[in-house]
Amino acid sequence: MSQPVLLFDVIETLFSLQPLRDRMAEEGLGEPYADLFFAQLLRDAFALSATGVFHPFPAIAAGTLKVVLSSAGKAADAPQVKRLLSSFSELPAHPDVAPALAQARSAGVKIILLTNGSADNTRQLVAREGLSALVDGIVSIDEHSVWKPQPTLYQAVCKQFNTPQAETTVIAAHAWDVHGARQAGLRAVWVERQDHYFHELMSAPSGEARTLPEAVSMALIRSGRH
Amino acid sequence: MSQPVLLFDVIETLFSLQPLRDRMAEEGLGEPYADLFFAQLLRDAFALSATGVFHPFPAIAAGTLKVVLSSAGKAADAPQVKRLLSSFSELPAHPDVAPALAQARSAGVKIILLTNGSADNTRQLVAREGLSALVDGIVSIDEHSVWKPQPTLYQAVCKQFNTPQAETTVIAAHAWDVHGARQAGLRAVWVERQDHYFHELMSAPSGEARTLPEAVSMALIRSGRH
Repeated sequence: MSQPVLLFDVIETLFSLQPLRDRMAEEGLGEPYADLFFAQLLRDAFALSATGVFHPFPAIAAGTLKVVLSSAGKAADAPQVKRLLSSFSELPAHPDVAPALAQARSAGVKIILLTNGSADNTRQLVAREGLSALVDGIVSIDEHSVWKPQPTLYQAVCKQFNTPQAETTVIAAHAWDVHGARQAGLRAVWVERQDHYFHELMSAPSGEARTLPEAVSMALIRSGRH
Repeated sequence: MSQPVLLFDVIETLFSLQPLRDRMAEEGLGEPYADLFFAQLLRDAFALSATGVFHPFPAIAAGTLKVVLSSAGKAADAPQVKRLLSSFSELPAHPDVAPALAQARSAGVKIILLTNGSADNTRQLVAREGLSALVDGIVSIDEHSVWKPQPTLYQAVCKQFNTPQAETTVIAAHAWDVHGARQAGLRAVWVERQDHYFHELMSAPSGEARTLPEAVSMALIRSGRH
């Protein structure tokens, strides 16, 4: 039997967007402007994907942020955009991340982070939080030039780690990520973070968890490691 | 020479989301919650599209609205969702729409509305504003089961109206719509509405206009009808 693999989503699932919220609030853009920016960024990335055009997260984020700032009547010059985007290098881990990863480590599963962000930035976030020893690998969409939730990406990652799709579990706070994974034939556990309702048209998750350790437990039960 | 065709985007380009903003504000969800909802709705639709799954606008909107309301700690029951979504049947035309359509009509071009929304709802919005005589046709993505900005949709619509892609112009307030049209080989004029900056990674428009009549003029000049 091959070693089961858990594929953790990164932004929002493991790391909080709070620093982005704080910096946008300093500009007079209170909640939910950070959420608006992040939703538009994904909308724009998915629109580009629909036409077969790939650009990495930081480039799309810069463009979308200029749109959001301009529409809100704020300065959207290069230093301003750089200052706000630098918050992505300071995202703190949610408090339940270290226990959840430790639990997965104890169970002997492979822990892979699969992110729409960049691998370098993710590596730095993991290191800042002292989590490096708990992570077996970081895969960015940049390696495959395909954004989640395109099914080919999840399939390519399973191939990369030589793990059967039906034995591999995505853990994510986003319904669209769960949907993509399920459509690609993987398991997927949804963890309740910023959202409290799972979009009824997205493919249902294999499990719904209130916390990350609970999500890991669900993934382990299903992989027969619990 | 075939009659040139202008394909007008509908929501935001022709009709304002103000009634949605007003109703959300009555629930204590001030700006930019309507924009957040609309961005997430498109993000969700594009994510579903990425996996080859099609659902029409009203169904996706209902699910996304429940997510947004729940996350904001508001009631997301059926009557509430219905009440908010009913604002889509009350969107008023922007003040420059009637003059722009009249101008296009005088120039003898074919005026088609191409919407991610439903054809019925669009027909009602057009009739409420007394614009029916200025519109030659309404095409919803439902007819083709493909959301904008997938290039195949724009191509299918050109085929439907027997118009060469390079002689057909999309007029839209959304950069992602312009991008899709350009990727499909059409012309596209971007009209500045809610956005004041064109996302630098989206395919550049054939023209950028401050108002809808200006957008129509640009489209006519390029089609040799001006």
